[in-house]
Amino acid sequence: MDTANTAPASPERRRYDVDSLLDVAVSVFIAQGYDGTSMGDLAKAARLSKSSLYHHVDSKEHLLRLALDRAVDPLFAITQEPGSLQGSAIDRLEFVVRRMVEVLVERLPFVTLLLRIRGNTDTERWALDQRREFDRFMTQLVAEAAVEGEVRTDIDPALTTRLVFGMVNSLVEWYVPDRRRRANETAKLADAVLKIAFTGLRATRP
Amino acid sequence: MDTANTAPASPERRRYDVDSLLDVAVSVFIAQGYDGTSMGDLAKAARLSKSSLYHHVDSKEHLLRLALDRAVDPLFAITQEPGSLQGSAIDRLEFVVRRMVEVLVERLPFVTLLLRIRGNTDTERWALDQRREFDRFMTQLVAEAAVEGEVRTDIDPALTTRLVFGMVNSLVEWYVPDRRRRANETAKLADAVLKIAFTGLRATRP
Repeated sequence: MDTANTAPASPERRRYDVDSLLDVAVSVFIAQGYDGTSMGDLAKAARLSKSSLYHHVDSKEHLLRLALDRAVDPLFAITQEPGSLQGSAIDRLEFVVRRMVEVLVERLPFVTLLLRIRGNTDTERWALDQRREFDRFMTQLVAEAAVEGEVRTDIDPALTTRLVFGMVNSLVEWYVPDRRRRANETAKLADAVLKIAFTGLRATRP
Repeated sequence: MDTANTAPASPERRRYDVDSLLDVAVSVFIAQGYDGTSMGDLAKAARLSKSSLYHHVDSKEHLLRLALDRAVDPLFAITQEPGSLQGSAIDRLEFVVRRMVEVLVERLPFVTLLLRIRGNTDTERWALDQRREFDRFMTQLVAEAAVEGEVRTDIDPALTTRLVFGMVNSLVEWYVPDRRRRANETAKLADAVLKIAFTGLRATRP
């Protein structure tokens, strides 16, 4: 970001500007699609002139990358947390799924954008690669838990990953965060996902 | 459909024409979005003149409705099948989820379109109403199975429906039907969905 010609701004102030811009950009990308959005549309939605917008970002693809980072960074941060690195594979697996629900709720529009990406530009292809890498991380955990005898062995680990991620990711289609009691709501949601995914709907096993 | 000015066509022949047209239309709607598609785009994709296209359908919205019927009709037909009407609620629930997977695979592009609909026209709002009605049917079954003691009572039935449908519907994002061994593939997929949703990933309950 080139700030050479602007009045001095504190890092906090500049950070706030980019965050606000990304909030606007992500909602326009989701509403119109990335391909269907122009820099003019983004400037209008952000109430900026196009030249002011170009002052903040180099291009529409640069803005997409910054927005996608807001989803990809916290998702990959999960893989480095102690809960993902220590303990039995089944415990690590449950930890990852719970943290995914939390990141989805916390970064809902950014994760929604990540899930809608199709792959026409380098940045979109990069995002799809990141999703595939996260899938492989999860698949590896499922396979380890199966070897440890904690996860059923009659479903292919890659298929398990797709189905469980399908359930988790579906939250972006209907979940409306309640800011007043977010932490409690998120915990309840994560509990429901974990119960269904790990022990199933049935009251007793048949 | 007005056929007064055409040469006589057998019902089979005419049916084939509409089916082909819908196959083309649904792929264009999915690729470009319904809002982003014009009758000109559809005519071009179908290799028809615009006047030939208008000979088959009254409007773009008419074509959307015909395409959505290809998903909505078989989904609601499930609710009238003996497996949905007879037996314990848990058996009916498992039957419905299995049949949903089968309909998704069988009508993949049409169900994909149904799941991408946002609601800007009467037809789109109708489709969203149909989805909500199907959700209510499933939620009612989950609630009945909970009353019968077969389904856990610690998750709200509407939330259970959303999560299980999220898992099932996620198939449209990645599933590529294999025409050579479709029946076997579909059964394996449905088995995996039912195992995870009803008895969970864990090899043994904690």
